[in-house]
Amino acid sequence: MGVTDKSSVTASSPPSKAINGSLHTKAEDVSGQPKGKRRSKYRHVAAYHSKSQHSSLSRESNTSTSFLGFRNLMVIVLVAMNLRLIIENFMKYGVLICIKCHDYRKQDVVLGSMLFALAPCQLFIVYTLELAAAGRAKETIGRKKKDDSAEEGERDQRAFRTIWRFALSFHILNTLLYLTVTSYVVYYYIHHPGIGTVCEVHAIILALKNWSYAFTNRDLREAMLNPSAESALPELYSSCPYPRNITLGNLTYFWLAPTLVYQPVYPRSASIRWSFVAKRMFEFLCLSVFIWLLSAQYAAPVLRNSIDKIAVMDIASILERIMKLSTISLVIWLAGFFAIFQSFLNALAEVMRFGDREFYLDWWNSPSLGVYWRSWNRPVYLFMKRHVYSPLVGRGYSPLTASIVVFTVSALLHELLVGIPTHTLIGVALVGMLFQLPLIALTAPLEKMKDPSGRIIGNSIFWISFCVVGQPLGALLYFFAWQAKYGSVSRMA
Amino acid sequence: MGVTDKSSVTASSPPSKAINGSLHTKAEDVSGQPKGKRRSKYRHVAAYHSKSQHSSLSRESNTSTSFLGFRNLMVIVLVAMNLRLIIENFMKYGVLICIKCHDYRKQDVVLGSMLFALAPCQLFIVYTLELAAAGRAKETIGRKKKDDSAEEGERDQRAFRTIWRFALSFHILNTLLYLTVTSYVVYYYIHHPGIGTVCEVHAIILALKNWSYAFTNRDLREAMLNPSAESALPELYSSCPYPRNITLGNLTYFWLAPTLVYQPVYPRSASIRWSFVAKRMFEFLCLSVFIWLLSAQYAAPVLRNSIDKIAVMDIASILERIMKLSTISLVIWLAGFFAIFQSFLNALAEVMRFGDREFYLDWWNSPSLGVYWRSWNRPVYLFMKRHVYSPLVGRGYSPLTASIVVFTVSALLHELLVGIPTHTLIGVALVGMLFQLPLIALTAPLEKMKDPSGRIIGNSIFWISFCVVGQPLGALLYFFAWQAKYGSVSRMA
Repeated sequence: MGVTDKSSVTASSPPSKAINGSLHTKAEDVSGQPKGKRRSKYRHVAAYHSKSQHSSLSRESNTSTSFLGFRNLMVIVLVAMNLRLIIENFMKYGVLICIKCHDYRKQDVVLGSMLFALAPCQLFIVYTLELAAAGRAKETIGRKKKDDSAEEGERDQRAFRTIWRFALSFHILNTLLYLTVTSYVVYYYIHHPGIGTVCEVHAIILALKNWSYAFTNRDLREAMLNPSAESALPELYSSCPYPRNITLGNLTYFWLAPTLVYQPVYPRSASIRWSFVAKRMFEFLCLSVFIWLLSAQYAAPVLRNSIDKIAVMDIASILERIMKLSTISLVIWLAGFFAIFQSFLNALAEVMRFGDREFYLDWWNSPSLGVYWRSWNRPVYLFMKRHVYSPLVGRGYSPLTASIVVFTVSALLHELLVGIPTHTLIGVALVGMLFQLPLIALTAPLEKMKDPSGRIIGNSIFWISFCVVGQPLGALLYFFAWQAKYGSVSRMA
Repeated sequence: MGVTDKSSVTASSPPSKAINGSLHTKAEDVSGQPKGKRRSKYRHVAAYHSKSQHSSLSRESNTSTSFLGFRNLMVIVLVAMNLRLIIENFMKYGVLICIKCHDYRKQDVVLGSMLFALAPCQLFIVYTLELAAAGRAKETIGRKKKDDSAEEGERDQRAFRTIWRFALSFHILNTLLYLTVTSYVVYYYIHHPGIGTVCEVHAIILALKNWSYAFTNRDLREAMLNPSAESALPELYSSCPYPRNITLGNLTYFWLAPTLVYQPVYPRSASIRWSFVAKRMFEFLCLSVFIWLLSAQYAAPVLRNSIDKIAVMDIASILERIMKLSTISLVIWLAGFFAIFQSFLNALAEVMRFGDREFYLDWWNSPSLGVYWRSWNRPVYLFMKRHVYSPLVGRGYSPLTASIVVFTVSALLHELLVGIPTHTLIGVALVGMLFQLPLIALTAPLEKMKDPSGRIIGNSIFWISFCVVGQPLGALLYFFAWQAKYGSVSRMA
């Protein structure tokens, strides 16, 4: 609101607009001070209160007030509070990070490498089994072409089932053997939980992949033997019909590809962008270091301090400890999720030219626990859906039963994953996973609500139950069990 | 995706939609399981990876991902972190709140009441002064009607100036006397900082009101003496032309009304809604108790613990203390702002039927310090604009000079307001207010930026400089000065 071109402004002009201007800008409208040839005197008479109006926070106010500034404040307070905790931690403990103090033994590395080296052997057995089954199936087809009687069809079915039972037993034997050997070695001989976890995760992934490979190939075989409308295969597979997919190359690709669901053919990307791979691996490394720093400097002292309090079962103290842990474990969890599901799996997918990069959906917006479990880990979810849930429902079981089975399998795998490398099979991961079922049932109505407040409540329940309470409580209990068994984790007293 | 009406679904149908469904709902599409008369076998062959797609967090992803869940998480983490601090505080100190321990003396209350009782006397002097001035002005008008020569006009002007100088000196004397007496009594005889603050605030408000009353009446008087287009008064005032507004009732209304800017007439609301008043006063009481609890239980121990650290000037510790204080002082500040500017002033305005309730704008969104100072305290801002800034600019001073004067006056008043009741005139409030000028200059370019990120940066600078650093630092320094002078505030060691 310029002054010069408003020489008719009088002392009484209401400053309704002007008062929003800057206190020290030239363009200010100094009410009552028109810049004429003769400077007239300023008058203290302007009616600053010229109309009735409500305060912007009053319910009567009809202007919709923005609260964007409070969002900024929230971020700042979060940063400040955590910065404070960092300084407090530093003043209390000094620098706890120490590369030389890290006590993984040579034995751990050697045994871990040996377990990884076993994987190709195990895969070769899988390949041989499927090759044999495919050979038998081809023989059957050849015989069928000569003699197409109903009796022959009956015999074919029997033969098919025999092949499958034979293959299945060997698959189970092979998979269980590898899983058992790995778990046994990790539990008894690999002390370092990090190395143990990598070995155990790999073994479980291999077991799931075998499962998927065996069942998918069985049904591809059956589709070849009984070609009908019902067993028509996806278009995608036509470039590699059944027996031709049983090659070592195809199996190795499945072993390394970021999926647990076997398909003879996957959507592929055109080429490998090495710069993309480098960026993702850089992210992965940075986040890994970040997680390590957080664990050593922040999580470890808090966990250590919590032990006495858990031992005496002081509820207020345990609550305080869990809340202190929850921020740290939440940050570690988010960093870990990004490192593995965004950085690592994308890098791996790029190297393997694996096209489908949907490793997660926007689980952070989950309005219920159910949506969360369907979103955060797509590879496992798709596996469970394709090879556990759907077959059970297909056999006539109720969806609830199928869900219970899915979560029971998942709970057992989680317990293996956490309990074996930490040498503490205390069943917390198992119970925690099974506890998801009532939580899912409880929050299911919220996800269907049209009202956004229902979704916000559901989302809050998800965050609180999962990230603020569940994770730190679990970490605390496993740490407690570890400490009770081995004493201090690091050499620091 | 119902199953029953899709009997043509084959084993190979891609589950693109179905996988978003619930794991345990009846409506689930169990791919490969059409519900025909003959239950066909489920096949593990569906192509779950049917197309190439990006991860939703990848930059290549063309779907815009919502991060609403993270906002919920932020709120939860803030609540959890503060709940933890509450528990920690309780475990460290127990319950510190103690009504009987409160050590305000009888003398404080008596002296405070006497200072308040002086206000009407002081106002009566103001009234008498203005009544006399109005009388002289009316005489002049009377004379003017008889003899309208240029010489006579000249003499009138002189007479007017004489009246004004006379009135001004008495106004200044009267106002300064009241302010000095109050400050003196509060500084030397009222120990309790709360009672002292109320008395000092009231005295400063009265001084500002007197200032506004005197200057506005002078200019109304001048407008009456020289009626011209330039001195035309606001429409609003026409219901109460100049000398008629010089009544005790009008002055008392101005004394009690929630404004510092005198107008003969204000926009008024139609009636008093007593339920509205009751609600606002209830809010005010609750927030006052809340602030008291926070101060006694949380702020006081932190301040007490900070003293040794300030004394030895350990930078890391001071930083840590300031950050710990910043959350508490921020909450107290926000609660105090709401209690005074929303609850108390609205209640007062309702009782006074004062129409203009715009006591603040949305200062929390301020993109710069300048906008903040123009938004958060409208009564003082309007006063400064009408009676300090605009007159100076009207006299030809640059807006920068005028702003410097405004902030210097404001700084002096702040120092009085904080320093007198706490008996520690250490100049921190003064310096803090003057320090606003470079901050305003620094953030001024941000408020003009079209880009929202500029506004967010400016808003963050505002929050950090003002609420996260400025306030707790100030509180710390005044507490330190108080403690150095008197020792512990409360009787608790």
